[in-house]
Amino acid sequence: MTRRSHTPRDPDFARRCQESCASQPAMSRLFGGKMVSIEPGYCEIHIATQPDFLQQLGNFHGGIVGALADSAAGYAALSLLEPGLEVVTVEYKISFLAPAFGEYLVGRGEVLRSGRTLHFCSADIFAVQNGVEKPVAQMTTTMMAVPDHKK
Amino acid sequence: MTRRSHTPRDPDFARRCQESCASQPAMSRLFGGKMVSIEPGYCEIHIATQPDFLQQLGNFHGGIVGALADSAAGYAALSLLEPGLEVVTVEYKISFLAPAFGEYLVGRGEVLRSGRTLHFCSADIFAVQNGVEKPVAQMTTTMMAVPDHKK
Amino acid sequence: MTRRSHTPRDPDFARRCQESCASQPAMSRLFGGKMVSIEPGYCEIHIATQPDFLQQLGNFHGGIVGALADSAAGYAALSLLEPGLEVVTVEYKISFLAPAFGEYLVGRGEVLRSGRTLHFCSADIFAVQNGVEKPVAQMTTTMMAVPDHKK
Amino acid sequence: MTRRSHTPRDPDFARRCQESCASQPAMSRLFGGKMVSIEPGYCEIHIATQPDFLQQLGNFHGGIVGALADSAAGYAALSLLEPGLEVVTVEYKISFLAPAFGEYLVGRGEVLRSGRTLHFCSADIFAVQNGVEKPVAQMTTTMMAVPDHKK
Repeated sequence: MTRRSHTPRDPDFARRCQESCASQPAMSRLFGGKMVSIEPGYCEIHIATQPDFLQQLGNFHGGIVGALADSAAGYAALSLLEPGLEVVTVEYKISFLAPAFGEYLVGRGEVLRSGRTLHFCSADIFAVQNGVEKPVAQMTTTMMAVPDHKK
Repeated sequence: MTRRSHTPRDPDFARRCQESCASQPAMSRLFGGKMVSIEPGYCEIHIATQPDFLQQLGNFHGGIVGALADSAAGYAALSLLEPGLEVVTVEYKISFLAPAFGEYLVGRGEVLRSGRTLHFCSADIFAVQNGVEKPVAQMTTTMMAVPDHKK
Repeated sequence: MTRRSHTPRDPDFARRCQESCASQPAMSRLFGGKMVSIEPGYCEIHIATQPDFLQQLGNFHGGIVGALADSAAGYAALSLLEPGLEVVTVEYKISFLAPAFGEYLVGRGEVLRSGRTLHFCSADIFAVQNGVEKPVAQMTTTMMAVPDHKK
Repeated sequence: MTRRSHTPRDPDFARRCQESCASQPAMSRLFGGKMVSIEPGYCEIHIATQPDFLQQLGNFHGGIVGALADSAAGYAALSLLEPGLEVVTVEYKISFLAPAFGEYLVGRGEVLRSGRTLHFCSADIFAVQNGVEKPVAQMTTTMMAVPDHKK
């Protein structure tokens, strides 16, 4: 995928996204997600395998794959917003290309188009097994910028 | 929603769905999901609030809402299959109608159309707060019947 | 489907929706769509079969089924808006439950949730053959209210 | 988007796809679509502007954008199938990134993953105005291979 070039409206976007991700109980504690890269309009998050994340055959539960894709896309969108704004997911669609077996999941989110209110994003999910990365899911999503009421 | 009437191909479908759900580490242990109703082409699963399921504002993380909807729709499809078949999620789309606050989530999955290979399902998710049920998400999904390799 | 009850913000909503539909070249002229019912949060449009609407096997082309569902959902949303606002489609997902054979198509759009900016809608499409109505497609969509620049 | 490399199972795939597209009344006659490129797992179709394809503001109706994306993705999938098989659309989701103004539409469909029965595809739609190509819509879709009953 050709990465689109985006200009961030907040020079401190990286720290803001990292802190938001780390303070999310579900993504950081329940799923153990680590944000390994954040650029304007792009975000990469990894989730390491834990037994409770798996289905009976040993592949990742779709709910965790979906949560990872949603988060990677959401932080890609957040990276482009001004301070004081937050991102909410309006909707997403995810296609499960292949079962996700391996040591960890890689989620790469990207902003396809950034509007005033709505942000169209995509996310690609890969499973890494014995060092080999394989595509397992593909998401497209609509994100909306809203005032950040936590502050 | 008018419930469609379906005929199960396996008289033992309820036990089979209950056992499958209880043996899923992600749904039963990680999310604590309980299957409270299973009928031909219909399934209801509840997930009680835990601190790690929440976002910073106290509402459920979308990943858990999505996992619940996916499971409710998947078991609705499984309830109509012959023994020896399993269900995999091909894709789903979920719309987040409102933030999900409350004591627990209710997921109701339903089969819209049951084909030979593919099953079109929907799921409605509600959050229950102080005993009041409020719609928070809506999913449509394509499920595929595959041989059950766990047996 | 249980119809939700909605209150229109424009008492003249029915005329406004009818006029908008009749003035759309694509829906009214190309596809010959007729709005047969418009209520607050609900719209029904019919499209009669023409040879150019069909695939090689004689069933409706998916593009026409999709256009009908999009229009029925869009006018359901427009019926709830104040004068001076227009509706644009943010995204939709459509599932093709069965091939659409028959004399005409029926599209029934409904608003699931009406927010300030975004409107979540669904649409069900039926094909009528020898007087028998059969479900052929199901859509969910996000609509956005924007200022009507045509006026 | 990095184009995936695919191997066709039918050496005559290009002629088969061209003929199928030309014989579709809706795509070839109603919308005037021209297949300008067909490669293994890839298809490009153009639709020239006609007054009846437009909305009141002069942009393409979403139904035509959707039909183009569906066809481009479908022929990308068909290009990989053995003779005697046909493609049906299971479902698609389309996001409307921007209104589509211009002289013609370009639809580029691609196969993301080709399975035995199901084919995951995407399509990007561009509007060309004064020679400048602008992205206007993005689709992901599930296609299914079925026996071709027309032969």
